[in-house]
Amino acid sequence: MNLPLGYLYASTYAGIRQAEKDDLALIVSGLPANAAAVFTQNRVQAAPVRLCRRHLSASRGLAGAILVNAGNANCATRTGDRVALAACKAAARLLRLPVSQVLPASTGVIGVEMDAAAIPDALPRLAAGLARDRFEDVARAIMTTDLVPKMAFAEVKLRRGVVRIAGMTKGSGMIQPRMATTLGFVLTDAVIPVPRLRAMLKRGVERSYHRLSVDGDTSTNDTLALLANGASGVRAAAGEMAALEEAVAGVMQRLAQAIARDGEGARKFVAIEVAGAPSDDAATRLARAIANSPLVKTAIAGSDPNWGRILSAAGNAGVAFDPAKTDIHMQGVLVCRSGMAAPFAEPELKAKLDGPECQIRLTLRGNGKGSAQFWTCDLTEGYIHINASYRT
Amino acid sequence: MNLPLGYLYASTYAGIRQAEKDDLALIVSGLPANAAAVFTQNRVQAAPVRLCRRHLSASRGLAGAILVNAGNANCATRTGDRVALAACKAAARLLRLPVSQVLPASTGVIGVEMDAAAIPDALPRLAAGLARDRFEDVARAIMTTDLVPKMAFAEVKLRRGVVRIAGMTKGSGMIQPRMATTLGFVLTDAVIPVPRLRAMLKRGVERSYHRLSVDGDTSTNDTLALLANGASGVRAAAGEMAALEEAVAGVMQRLAQAIARDGEGARKFVAIEVAGAPSDDAATRLARAIANSPLVKTAIAGSDPNWGRILSAAGNAGVAFDPAKTDIHMQGVLVCRSGMAAPFAEPELKAKLDGPECQIRLTLRGNGKGSAQFWTCDLTEGYIHINASYRT
Repeated sequence: MNLPLGYLYASTYAGIRQAEKDDLALIVSGLPANAAAVFTQNRVQAAPVRLCRRHLSASRGLAGAILVNAGNANCATRTGDRVALAACKAAARLLRLPVSQVLPASTGVIGVEMDAAAIPDALPRLAAGLARDRFEDVARAIMTTDLVPKMAFAEVKLRRGVVRIAGMTKGSGMIQPRMATTLGFVLTDAVIPVPRLRAMLKRGVERSYHRLSVDGDTSTNDTLALLANGASGVRAAAGEMAALEEAVAGVMQRLAQAIARDGEGARKFVAIEVAGAPSDDAATRLARAIANSPLVKTAIAGSDPNWGRILSAAGNAGVAFDPAKTDIHMQGVLVCRSGMAAPFAEPELKAKLDGPECQIRLTLRGNGKGSAQFWTCDLTEGYIHINASYRT
Repeated sequence: MNLPLGYLYASTYAGIRQAEKDDLALIVSGLPANAAAVFTQNRVQAAPVRLCRRHLSASRGLAGAILVNAGNANCATRTGDRVALAACKAAARLLRLPVSQVLPASTGVIGVEMDAAAIPDALPRLAAGLARDRFEDVARAIMTTDLVPKMAFAEVKLRRGVVRIAGMTKGSGMIQPRMATTLGFVLTDAVIPVPRLRAMLKRGVERSYHRLSVDGDTSTNDTLALLANGASGVRAAAGEMAALEEAVAGVMQRLAQAIARDGEGARKFVAIEVAGAPSDDAATRLARAIANSPLVKTAIAGSDPNWGRILSAAGNAGVAFDPAKTDIHMQGVLVCRSGMAAPFAEPELKAKLDGPECQIRLTLRGNGKGSAQFWTCDLTEGYIHINASYRT
């Protein structure tokens, strides 16, 4: 898959995290890119989140660079605003950009002051390493408890030429994005005006990151940015924007799914489908309640077709429905018909649940046509192990 | 501590659960007792929950017996209503009570049909075993994944004499009671009219079971009943009802705390206090968000004073507050002042967090005087282990 034209990537180790793995990364667009971003809805927002929002507003949706670090969230810090701004200013000087065209993002531990010199000191060697083909290096540098880098790519053939889309994301715990996930960057070389880009991002997030939960915790640093630098010179024709939007949303969906697959301690990816709800929003609430039930998640870890927990979790979603008109499928097998046990071959189903993917379908009757997809993972001892010891 | 006068207790093994531990219990009041009960707010409600509500309504708040089984929730079952009613009828015949004065309750696995004969067959020997001093036997018979029976007692000296209160409860997982917890029975020999009893229960639940979460899952079978049989002959004087209510609420609080202490896999009891919120309700929402955050609960399991997770969890409660005016104490030690790290001796605090009790205090400034207490437990590998294998 080809990367979008006109972007450069670099990463380095700036000493922000203890483990000597790259923790600072830079994405640069040769042409200033049209940009849109969505951020965490947590009341507690990190300094880079606040600054990124200010910069996008000051630049009216133009971005030349994304400067991102892992290992420290720069959240709930005394010096946070100052350190984030100084880092952006240093990058802007080096790249000859207005400071408002540098978008900052951070991920890592909350409440620890950042070394003010770490990023400025590392920037010259970071910029010196910029290259067209280091996309994956950046995807690796932004990892925290992630086990694998998460990337997704697409190409769309439009009448006037081909445009490319590349996305990366990180995240494994503290994942229940509301507006965005912990960090995600989606780049394209298509020509897309800012208002259109914003609408595309908003709708795409609704179908991707908003359908994802690892542990029900929304981070303080969630940031998802979509950049379109137009380097392909290709503008979508009137009837083609929908196809382009579909491709962008597809990349975001694969990124969100990749986060669920790599959820902390996860051994299984869980896809939840709800149909027949009063509305799509109600369907999403039902799916989210199932996805966030630790009893459902541990049953899946144990390959236990315990549909009673699924029904009970749905009953707690705050959505009106009649249990007696509810069916549940697991791995395509009907386990609950009309709110009661359906006969099924338990050993066979348990064997199917041992696989790396679990499908849950909740079907309501007589309520409407609302539907939703949602992604999560199982809950294992690994999650406990990681989070009882992550910080220290 | 003396038990309330006028109640008899019995338990037996009726073959409802596989392990050969008592799974059927009976509480009988010699005089019909005034009774009030609250039930789960889950949309999916078990047959005994629906029947218990009907009986209380038909009897206008009179109860002669509570018939309770563990090992099967009788929820999402084809034969549920019929089996529950037949069991109550059999008990009513045996005890010479109107059927509406028998309150049924069940706990255990969801979605498995009950053996219709199990309870009627066991009832004669159950009734034959009724005795004044078998309170604890009943508290043990209603246990599922509970490790310890949960009981609390109180005596109140009123002007006209002494009244006694005794409560029992069960529950360890699927615990975030809304209206009640999975099962709880509070008995007193005081004379309390039904309307007063209902008000007392409602306010008591608000301060006890509604301040409790083990895993954020609300069960399908939650039932909390409060019975007052008046066997002491002691009626509270006008000015004494408040003291009586306080004692009843105190028993309920100790029962709710006992559930948190015995949460599935729990090694630590966690008490959360929130002060300075816009309202008591907002304070409760903040406390609940902290209590339900798996990241907070795993940090406590690891004795990690990771206050950033506490602040982030509070930020997700949907309550408006200024992080910069927020302090956090753990074990009485200030760890976060004005939304930022406060200096503290980490090894000493970690040692304090190794103990069996954890105190978290969140203080907001400039918002109001809303406050709340909330109880939960840490999240350990034990929770996963229990729930990945409970049903099968």
